[in-house]
Amino acid sequence: MDKIPASGTDSAAGLKQADQLRSDNVTCGPSATGRGDGGLFVRSRMAGRAGRSDLIADVVNSGADVAPADIGLARAGTDLPQAMSRVAETVETALDHLLPVPEGAEARLAEAMRYATLGGGKRLRAFLVMETAKLFAVSPTCAARVASAVEMLHAYSLVHDDLPAMDNDDLRRGKPSTHKAFDEATAILVGDALQTRAFEVLAEPDTHSDPQARCELVTALAAAAGARGMCGGQMLDMLAEGEGLDGPAVTRLQALKTGRLIQFSAEAGAILGRAAPHRRHLLAAYGRDVGAAFQIADDLLDTEGSTEETGKTAGKDAAAGKATMVAVLGPERARAQAEMLAAQAAKHLESFGDKASLLVALATFAVTRRN
Amino acid sequence: MDKIPASGTDSAAGLKQADQLRSDNVTCGPSATGRGDGGLFVRSRMAGRAGRSDLIADVVNSGADVAPADIGLARAGTDLPQAMSRVAETVETALDHLLPVPEGAEARLAEAMRYATLGGGKRLRAFLVMETAKLFAVSPTCAARVASAVEMLHAYSLVHDDLPAMDNDDLRRGKPSTHKAFDEATAILVGDALQTRAFEVLAEPDTHSDPQARCELVTALAAAAGARGMCGGQMLDMLAEGEGLDGPAVTRLQALKTGRLIQFSAEAGAILGRAAPHRRHLLAAYGRDVGAAFQIADDLLDTEGSTEETGKTAGKDAAAGKATMVAVLGPERARAQAEMLAAQAAKHLESFGDKASLLVALATFAVTRRN
Repeated sequence: MDKIPASGTDSAAGLKQADQLRSDNVTCGPSATGRGDGGLFVRSRMAGRAGRSDLIADVVNSGADVAPADIGLARAGTDLPQAMSRVAETVETALDHLLPVPEGAEARLAEAMRYATLGGGKRLRAFLVMETAKLFAVSPTCAARVASAVEMLHAYSLVHDDLPAMDNDDLRRGKPSTHKAFDEATAILVGDALQTRAFEVLAEPDTHSDPQARCELVTALAAAAGARGMCGGQMLDMLAEGEGLDGPAVTRLQALKTGRLIQFSAEAGAILGRAAPHRRHLLAAYGRDVGAAFQIADDLLDTEGSTEETGKTAGKDAAAGKATMVAVLGPERARAQAEMLAAQAAKHLESFGDKASLLVALATFAVTRRN
Repeated sequence: MDKIPASGTDSAAGLKQADQLRSDNVTCGPSATGRGDGGLFVRSRMAGRAGRSDLIADVVNSGADVAPADIGLARAGTDLPQAMSRVAETVETALDHLLPVPEGAEARLAEAMRYATLGGGKRLRAFLVMETAKLFAVSPTCAARVASAVEMLHAYSLVHDDLPAMDNDDLRRGKPSTHKAFDEATAILVGDALQTRAFEVLAEPDTHSDPQARCELVTALAAAAGARGMCGGQMLDMLAEGEGLDGPAVTRLQALKTGRLIQFSAEAGAILGRAAPHRRHLLAAYGRDVGAAFQIADDLLDTEGSTEETGKTAGKDAAAGKATMVAVLGPERARAQAEMLAAQAAKHLESFGDKASLLVALATFAVTRRN
């Protein structure tokens, strides 16, 4: 059995941070100090931005190849790496607490669950939860629980996706995938139990003082993850291998397979903050477009990046005849499409003003990253 | 792809029944007509039963081989087959509604989910949910949703358990297991998506008017199904093959692997009915003992029953060196143990009086059935 990484200095620092967070707003709704931005602010800002919105809409509709910098996407991007790194640390600590190792021989399962979940990944989904929760002044402690649940759900999907009967990939996040580090049966159980734990965490009282919000988190995550979401997309992906899907079919496949979970992550802050429906819809639209941009960028990296850069087996999707936008459009047009989606994503956030600057920067990062 | 059974006459009859149920108490708490049994009734009944409880406790503690009839277990058992059949029909209809087939190529996944879930099994877990819900006058419509969720969770566990990397079983409920009828990758996704749907159904508003009750259903099912429950038990089971576990270790393994989900099913009625904690505990204790009795009886059937009778590959567990009470105690002592557990289960229900007669009869059925 492989050893799991012990909780070291980083984890201890994150723990201290998490303890500090606990002194925050413990009801996990919007704080009483009214840090959420008001309706007036939104309206005045939208009025001032009308011209710019039209410009982006034109760019999107025309299909022109416009670099992100041309439409101001890169604003506030300098803080993004540090912010993502802070979120990754916070969520690592939260996951460490939420995935304890029990007594008894079944500890092997918990260790494998930790192997599959801790110490890796960009934590994109966690970042979206934490940042959108911040828009509504939600307690970071509560948001970190939801971020952890999404990361568990995502980790389960990767573990099952890597299985020999699925994508049969031996490498994940630069280390042996779970069925290689442990065994295939354990990997099946790891995915199963991580999914269970994700829903359990969402429904537990510590996640939100209002059980209605917890139920909404469960149903929204389930809709994103189930047969009409991620699992349905996986099914499409399997059926599509070597089938030569067209652009709309690939777009739909990707929207289900990876898009829905990213969209949920962006909506989660609004659910936690009991936001008005139109604000939740804006975040959902942002999440949908950012997710699509990330997916195309991922496929470009699979084509152009090295195994060392990405921590995944390079060129694997192309070799397997996977349905991707890169395969349909070619690398150049696929890149232009990703940049348009990133611009469109940023546009959905205009009414949130500067508070959403990191989320806007993330849209740029989606299409400029190298791993 | 195998065809799934069309909704035929049985299903149509069940549908009519389900429509009738919808006119019931839609708040899904205890009904305003006060059909729940009152505290007075409980107290008077318990006073009159003290001597009998002691008798059963003596029997249980002595380890004597006492037939169920000797301690009155078989009362009201004549209605049980019909009652189980009615519940199976109701839950089949509910599952049919809760597992629709979408448009698009991903329909294959939904069809495979239906293949794995519909048209089979004793529906023991569903029966426990429906009967315990009845004790608290919960609307059958709401209870049927919870019963369906438990059956989906159970079906997912069977689909994954049958996979080549797990128990590698080609036969389930008398027909090809899901990975044989479809393929291995589809079977993995079927299990994943069935688990997702189970939690989604529990958290949806139609399941209970009080979101607190829905959250409790989610957390209780997750605790029963996850790494500290069913998945943990599966892990123990895999590690135990050929290891020669002793009685207590086998008891713990079985309690996790199959017991916790059966226990949840028996508690679910109390959660739906917002019952007092002591009543929920009694039902949990009943579920724990009935579950253990069923498991031993299952292992006896694996040893003694035929493939035709059980719909599963006979003698498979023994051949695989699985840790069972039959292997530890031998068939005779294992049967005596199952009968003691059934008697103990019945004892926990005394304070519920005659309203629990079917649940008492179920305890007898656990140890007398032939499939």
